Amino acid sequence: MKEDRPLILLTNDDGIHAEGLRQLRIAAEKVGRVVISAPENEQTAVGHAITLYDPVRVHEVTKNGEFYGYGVGGTPADAVKLALHALLDRPPDLVISGINDGPNLGINVLYSGTVSAATEAAILGVPAIAVSVARKQDPPFPWVLPHVEKLAHWVLENGLPPGVALNVNVPALPPDEVEGFRLTTQALTKMRETFERREDPRGKSYYWLSGEATANDTANGSDITAVNEGYVSVTPLFYDLTAHSRSKGLSESLEKL
Amino acid sequence: MKEDRPLILLTNDDGIHAEGLRQLRIAAEKVGRVVISAPENEQTAVGHAITLYDPVRVHEVTKNGEFYGYGVGGTPADAVKLALHALLDRPPDLVISGINDGPNLGINVLYSGTVSAATEAAILGVPAIAVSVARKQDPPFPWVLPHVEKLAHWVLENGLPPGVALNVNVPALPPDEVEGFRLTTQALTKMRETFERREDPRGKSYYWLSGEATANDTANGSDITAVNEGYVSVTPLFYDLTAHSRSKGLSESLEKL
Repeated sequence: MKEDRPLILLTNDDGIHAEGLRQLRIAAEKVGRVVISAPENEQTAVGHAITLYDPVRVHEVTKNGEFYGYGVGGTPADAVKLALHALLDRPPDLVISGINDGPNLGINVLYSGTVSAATEAAILGVPAIAVSVARKQDPPFPWVLPHVEKLAHWVLENGLPPGVALNVNVPALPPDEVEGFRLTTQALTKMRETFERREDPRGKSYYWLSGEATANDTANGSDITAVNEGYVSVTPLFYDLTAHSRSKGLSESLEKL
Repeated sequence: MKEDRPLILLTNDDGIHAEGLRQLRIAAEKVGRVVISAPENEQTAVGHAITLYDPVRVHEVTKNGEFYGYGVGGTPADAVKLALHALLDRPPDLVISGINDGPNLGINVLYSGTVSAATEAAILGVPAIAVSVARKQDPPFPWVLPHVEKLAHWVLENGLPPGVALNVNVPALPPDEVEGFRLTTQALTKMRETFERREDPRGKSYYWLSGEATANDTANGSDITAVNEGYVSVTPLFYDLTAHSRSKGLSESLEKL
């Protein structure tokens, strides 16, 4: 019997026991059949890491006596790779990563495990969405769910350009106060960050990275501006780091070397 | 007294004790004054990870009774951030990351700690080069050094466009058999990879990621093609993941949601 419901793979970087994932599952189950493959432990700011030189373990995680999902002893990208290559019996129709507690905007996108999971799915040919809510303290996940549902339906109906993943950031506002969806670009402004030097009781120094989670940005069309103006920011990402528009003239000078 | 020699920061992802870094230092010292800030431990395939929720420790590493460099208890991006924000008394003129034993080509660039160190420097406003040699077994580091020297001089003289880092891959050939430098793009072909499922002595399953280190690619102008044809591949990278050219038409459809 052919299955009519779309298959949706969920993952995240806060780990399989995270509240954001539990809430994401509520929204995703309204849209399709859900399978979870997520890191066993928190994997925040892991960037696009994968496990090459260690075995990756998988545990079936049970909640309230029922199978909840696959807990993967690795990174978010590992969890996606493993699900697509080994755990699922067919490719999913959609991968959703999140809900991250706190924004993934601007340059932070490069450090984000939540986003790297979606990018990994896009590399492997599956449409993907990374979802974050723009408040770290008491993240209002339920406010995010109606937007996720809409976007999931939209992607399942229309598809995405090959290789593209969506980085979605939802402002911390009740759904009826959100202005709508806006297609954005990744802001490129630097963050203000410093290292605080401290000494441990034995006199050895260590450092804490501190600074703003998100840079200030007023660029038209950027992800940061959209969230500040009350829009759900939707940034299409593609896994090509080549500086296409910034490398004019380099070639000629380089080939003379 | 003003110092005339350029200041060059070296880092890597194989760790401060790696042979590739020791050899890179030989080349860099011909070009300028060298400071090393590199991870204490191997950090391969860490992607663009940073340490947010743990303190970062620094040890002064000595070799043959002399100060060799700062060993950082973190990722390659941590080592660069910490050097620029806390360890150096002025911004370096150039950051070089490497020499990686094995290529960093195509989609692998996203997983590479070597490359993420250079990208991090570019984000922080310092011209940067990531250097890899395209052979994992018995990497012929000395063959790489003349190319690194030339490129370092070239970048110091000409600068790089704002935010751009160079991802350099050197074919495993004696210097006089190399065809020259070629400005390239990151290849976008998928890798062939699989997970091998095994069982441990207690009957629990685990997985190994296996597959080709580098995808086959015949695209004109790609990094993989250049190395295959005997050129030093120089890919300009920029830290913008926005799918600028692949998102046509998305905006209209999205705003109707």
